[in-house]
Amino acid sequence: MKTVLVTLPVNDTHKAILEKAGAGCAISYLDPKELTKELVASADVIIGPVDPALICASEKLGLLQLFSAGADPYIVPGVLSDKTWLANATGAYGKAVSEHALALTLMMLKKLHLYRDEQRQNAWRDRGTVRSLTDCCVVVVGLGNIGLSYARLVKALGAKKVIGVKRRAGDCPEGVDELCLTSEIERVLPEADVLVSFLPGNRETFHYYTAERFALMKRDALFVNCGRGAAVAKEVLLDVLQNGVIGCAACDVTELEPLPGDSPLWQLENLMITPHVAGYLHLPEILVRIVDIAAENLARFLSGEEPLTLVDRKTGYKR
Amino acid sequence: MKTVLVTLPVNDTHKAILEKAGAGCAISYLDPKELTKELVASADVIIGPVDPALICASEKLGLLQLFSAGADPYIVPGVLSDKTWLANATGAYGKAVSEHALALTLMMLKKLHLYRDEQRQNAWRDRGTVRSLTDCCVVVVGLGNIGLSYARLVKALGAKKVIGVKRRAGDCPEGVDELCLTSEIERVLPEADVLVSFLPGNRETFHYYTAERFALMKRDALFVNCGRGAAVAKEVLLDVLQNGVIGCAACDVTELEPLPGDSPLWQLENLMITPHVAGYLHLPEILVRIVDIAAENLARFLSGEEPLTLVDRKTGYKR
Repeated sequence: MKTVLVTLPVNDTHKAILEKAGAGCAISYLDPKELTKELVASADVIIGPVDPALICASEKLGLLQLFSAGADPYIVPGVLSDKTWLANATGAYGKAVSEHALALTLMMLKKLHLYRDEQRQNAWRDRGTVRSLTDCCVVVVGLGNIGLSYARLVKALGAKKVIGVKRRAGDCPEGVDELCLTSEIERVLPEADVLVSFLPGNRETFHYYTAERFALMKRDALFVNCGRGAAVAKEVLLDVLQNGVIGCAACDVTELEPLPGDSPLWQLENLMITPHVAGYLHLPEILVRIVDIAAENLARFLSGEEPLTLVDRKTGYKR
Repeated sequence: MKTVLVTLPVNDTHKAILEKAGAGCAISYLDPKELTKELVASADVIIGPVDPALICASEKLGLLQLFSAGADPYIVPGVLSDKTWLANATGAYGKAVSEHALALTLMMLKKLHLYRDEQRQNAWRDRGTVRSLTDCCVVVVGLGNIGLSYARLVKALGAKKVIGVKRRAGDCPEGVDELCLTSEIERVLPEADVLVSFLPGNRETFHYYTAERFALMKRDALFVNCGRGAAVAKEVLLDVLQNGVIGCAACDVTELEPLPGDSPLWQLENLMITPHVAGYLHLPEILVRIVDIAAENLARFLSGEEPLTLVDRKTGYKR
């Protein structure tokens, strides 16, 4: 009998879905904080968050089903045995993260972050002209489930042009007007009014947004980061915002998380920060989708098939 | 020769459009602050803002072309002669105001106003679950150019249901799922997750959103006001937000404007205030549209035709 540990905050409906997929397994539900090295070592399958330090490359672990799209802490050598299939939750976050990114985009275009600051000083003060998405070229970096969903939202609102930036060449998807390779982003940066990043965290994307790249942008361009914070060095972000290299930025992720209390980024007027909350389990349907993905992958594991959302350990992306 | 005074901040392109429409007229461009009773008394046509107190029911004034959609200060008895055609700029603000209202809506749904407050305290603090427009019934009150434009935006983003509320029965326009009369709003209030007001200021809409009406709503409902502030009494707004009758609100307009510095509304956590900036001339294309409307109405006036956007002095709406 296979041992399955579930560390997601599931309800009875979710449990029924998992128990149907894992019929015949011993399924336990725990808080991630209750996990120990011994418990982890006993598991054939873990579904949900687990501290990487507890895994110790356990050879028994056949499937680790993450609840996130990003797999960065688990692809570090030594964390997982070669025998473990690592599956992510790609597809669960498209709606939540793309909507959060859209809300941040409109907030910046309409200067709502500045108006909130004025409000806190009881000040009825006009901050001047704003911008419409219909006048904006939006460059979306990372065209997975989340990026594509965002592209379609801004297109539906009438964005003037949407350029998608991805690793590999391919057909231009619906909602995107033009494609560009991540290795050639210099070509489209001068055109961007809004640059939105959904890049995951890995070696390729580390410090991808360099000072040189920001310098190619319009002085009033807006940068939104809802991918991973390490895509831009904290010093570079501070510099481009303090020195007007770009107009403003909104970041749900930062290079260090939580962002330290003494970071000078906090008090920048032209930076909006949210504490990595775009996804997580902040929309109820995210958990529903994760449970569906996990149930499918558990069933496949039990019949010896690879999970649908198997992560390539070299890249951190779905294979 | 007819005398035309233009008090809009026009550029050369705008002037060329007005001068083509008003060929043969003596057209002067002034700052509204330069206007005097004498100048106003000499005018056949005024295009742009003018202090109502300067007009003194001048019988010479044939056309007053406002730069706003709202005409409230000019329909007060005694301001205009019966001989003056009053035209508004209906149609110029659809995009700007609807986008501002959408930005405020998403800001509330994603709690970005709370995250801005946390940021100002250098605090990386998770504020819990958020909502998606796709789970929301959106009730749009006022289905003119602006309200209809907003309805289409939220529909394009996948809003679960859009109910339009208007004065008169009619066909259900594209982007709206269901219609309701303003006199019967009680019927749809219990269903609203988001209630958005674009009501103009007039006798009918004065204090339209009563405590009784808010009490019919869901405890977590969101209210957005981008119409006129007098549609809700300041005490009612304060009470429903302080006592959790509804969840939160975002107002671009307030009953008194500017909102007095000592108003308790400023420091409510669950109220977002912007200082009547959704429209004005904050998107460059607003002025282009106003100039187009003014040119058309000027040409019609010179050939003895009613303006396209003639205001009914009884209601304050376009006739």
